[in-house]
Amino acid sequence: MCMAQRGLIEEILDGPVVGGMLDDDFYTETMGQFVHERHPDVEVVLGLKNRSKERLAESVGENELGDELTRLQARRFTRTELHYVLGTDEYGDRMFRTPYIRHLEAFQMTPFDLSARDGQFHLQFPGQWKFAMRWEVPALATINGLRTRNRLRGMSSGERDLVIATGITRLWEKIRTIRKYPKLTFTDFGTRRRFHRAWQRYVVKTLRDELPGQFLGTSNTEAAMDFGVMPMGTNAHQLYMVIAAILSATDESLVASHNLVLREWWNLYGWTLSIALTDTFGSDFFFRDFTAKQAEEWKGLRQDSGDPVAFGHKALAFYRKHGINPMDKLLIFSDGLDMEMIVRLWLEFEGQIKVSFGWGTLLTNDLGLSAISIVIKVLAARLNADSPWVGTVKLSDNIEKAMGSAEDIERYKRVFQYLTTYAAECRV
Amino acid sequence: MCMAQRGLIEEILDGPVVGGMLDDDFYTETMGQFVHERHPDVEVVLGLKNRSKERLAESVGENELGDELTRLQARRFTRTELHYVLGTDEYGDRMFRTPYIRHLEAFQMTPFDLSARDGQFHLQFPGQWKFAMRWEVPALATINGLRTRNRLRGMSSGERDLVIATGITRLWEKIRTIRKYPKLTFTDFGTRRRFHRAWQRYVVKTLRDELPGQFLGTSNTEAAMDFGVMPMGTNAHQLYMVIAAILSATDESLVASHNLVLREWWNLYGWTLSIALTDTFGSDFFFRDFTAKQAEEWKGLRQDSGDPVAFGHKALAFYRKHGINPMDKLLIFSDGLDMEMIVRLWLEFEGQIKVSFGWGTLLTNDLGLSAISIVIKVLAARLNADSPWVGTVKLSDNIEKAMGSAEDIERYKRVFQYLTTYAAECRV
Repeated sequence: MCMAQRGLIEEILDGPVVGGMLDDDFYTETMGQFVHERHPDVEVVLGLKNRSKERLAESVGENELGDELTRLQARRFTRTELHYVLGTDEYGDRMFRTPYIRHLEAFQMTPFDLSARDGQFHLQFPGQWKFAMRWEVPALATINGLRTRNRLRGMSSGERDLVIATGITRLWEKIRTIRKYPKLTFTDFGTRRRFHRAWQRYVVKTLRDELPGQFLGTSNTEAAMDFGVMPMGTNAHQLYMVIAAILSATDESLVASHNLVLREWWNLYGWTLSIALTDTFGSDFFFRDFTAKQAEEWKGLRQDSGDPVAFGHKALAFYRKHGINPMDKLLIFSDGLDMEMIVRLWLEFEGQIKVSFGWGTLLTNDLGLSAISIVIKVLAARLNADSPWVGTVKLSDNIEKAMGSAEDIERYKRVFQYLTTYAAECRV
Repeated sequence: MCMAQRGLIEEILDGPVVGGMLDDDFYTETMGQFVHERHPDVEVVLGLKNRSKERLAESVGENELGDELTRLQARRFTRTELHYVLGTDEYGDRMFRTPYIRHLEAFQMTPFDLSARDGQFHLQFPGQWKFAMRWEVPALATINGLRTRNRLRGMSSGERDLVIATGITRLWEKIRTIRKYPKLTFTDFGTRRRFHRAWQRYVVKTLRDELPGQFLGTSNTEAAMDFGVMPMGTNAHQLYMVIAAILSATDESLVASHNLVLREWWNLYGWTLSIALTDTFGSDFFFRDFTAKQAEEWKGLRQDSGDPVAFGHKALAFYRKHGINPMDKLLIFSDGLDMEMIVRLWLEFEGQIKVSFGWGTLLTNDLGLSAISIVIKVLAARLNADSPWVGTVKLSDNIEKAMGSAEDIERYKRVFQYLTTYAAECRV
């Protein structure tokens, strides 16, 4: 009768957990065009990994998850969505070219393989990379959205209101803190582990209205389109991992693969999207491998694991060593940030190097209920349908986040001369 | 597009600040029948008093207030509302009799006199007591509701959401505290100084659902009707003040007036509504005047000003002096309570005497925005249209709350042997 947050709560209880084809990270388009143009025959298997202890298949039903994934498969790009992608000029006019738009126009989601065992889901997405990659973000958001829906359905009306009220008061604590640092900027990176689609959209709209000039935009293309903010994103570990796997026949080609990705990326998009992800095989390797010319040319670096303060100082030293003024370069921090860490990093590096923040789970899933740490990663790749499968590996600057078979991880550590011992539990 | 609390906020921005004829305190009916039966010719003038420093006529426009009061005048009792009143049996079958129902059926609000001067409203309601008394609560709720509406209209959508979210989180702090004391019971007494009608209704519904057995009901008859909870209330200072005024010709008749009201009340309603309001002319007088027989018969006492702990101990001593087991009696505390004071009083008196709480402003207007302390009181009364007007007086156990002309107050102090020196600012 007079439920407090009618719109939001009703959307969570009964509305879609994932929207249209663009309810996804913007990097799915930037990487998508890259893969579509350069590696159209590569095949991959993506798989769900639950980093937390929660028995996820008890929080979300196998049938309801299967039904939702089937619903996602039925989606097609609408004309409006295609216009939005084709009309993207924030990073250069016609950055998405006609062949890629034709690819999206005909896009159909590939099959999924779902079962539940011992309270956990086995969930995999095999297929051509250019298609299968589009499962990662919406499948994660689906699991998180269904988990939230089920939790809210089990609550009283008043308890539900309290959850949303807690989210709103926490969002405003963030807004008030950020207003104290008028030059601090950040971006929403929280689609995959969001509380729910409706909540992420509420957060984006509120930040747009309350922090103009500081809230730069969102990685969620649909939200960017619907709320008129910047779509943000470049590329992800996946890109480096898959190319490494298909070039892993020899140690030499494996170690060369990372810079090959950087060069191909530069050739496709140039300066505007030249934020290098630094930790796929450890940032020590990255700083050895990234050339003086690349350091000069590329816009900046993204830090996504390990100790962010230590990384920032490494980056400063790196640029200075190459005679580059760090104030011409941009550091993006994006590893499990909370408000405290953002302020700490801002105070540490402001005035020394350009700094911005990609704020994920703790921006879009901070309502007093625990979030769950789940990822969908490429498990294996092959050059084409006739090649053998090769396992993929990620090392990162936090060995707790390493992925791949033990044997492969050891080989990659040796090849990339990985010596990092930093280990920290993944909170989000 | 995705405003968080659509229903509530829209109701505050655009909905009614006062509902039907029963959006009022239940005591308006219990006192109303008393006045209709026993004092039908008495005339009164009620007037607004702003106890706070706020320039109220700058927070609420004279025109918008006038329009709302005019709208209130146009209301009539609906058939359903009449059924509800006639069907009230919680305090005895047919406690409201046919003549009173006929009175309500024909009820029309009397005129009001409104102007603004120096940032304050002059607002008075002259008329026959049995009619004019029905202005008190809805007029106060109108001023508070319009003040809230204007403040919210000046906010951004996100700021509005934060206000409601703050209200919800504070409501839940109360719920969680009260759950720690499973025998603690309380009633909503917060209609007159509520944040807004929509918010009071939200609070009542949430408390009904979340604290069954502890939330006893509401003084708001409409909310009691709509949410199926107990309508609560007995009588107010007004009753004692008006009868005192019309019997004030001699000191003897004046000092006798208080007990006359108590006896008339007992004769009309008997035990079920026999909660004596103790502080109109000071509780020291009350305890001297309230007879052993009354102490034996009456259900209990209400404390509404002064030091509640001291009052509680006075009440215990009073009952014990008369050989009455205090556990057979009920104390209702209702003076500007907050959660801390409620818990303190509960811990102080639980197990010694029955205790319950009438929780007002800080239950229905605790959303992080300041409430304003306004009252509407009877200023003058006369026996009938041919008699002279007599000023009314309230002393209370907090001399800051005293009302009336200085001369009248001095006379009442003398006549009622008032020696209290307790003075505290009225917060709410």
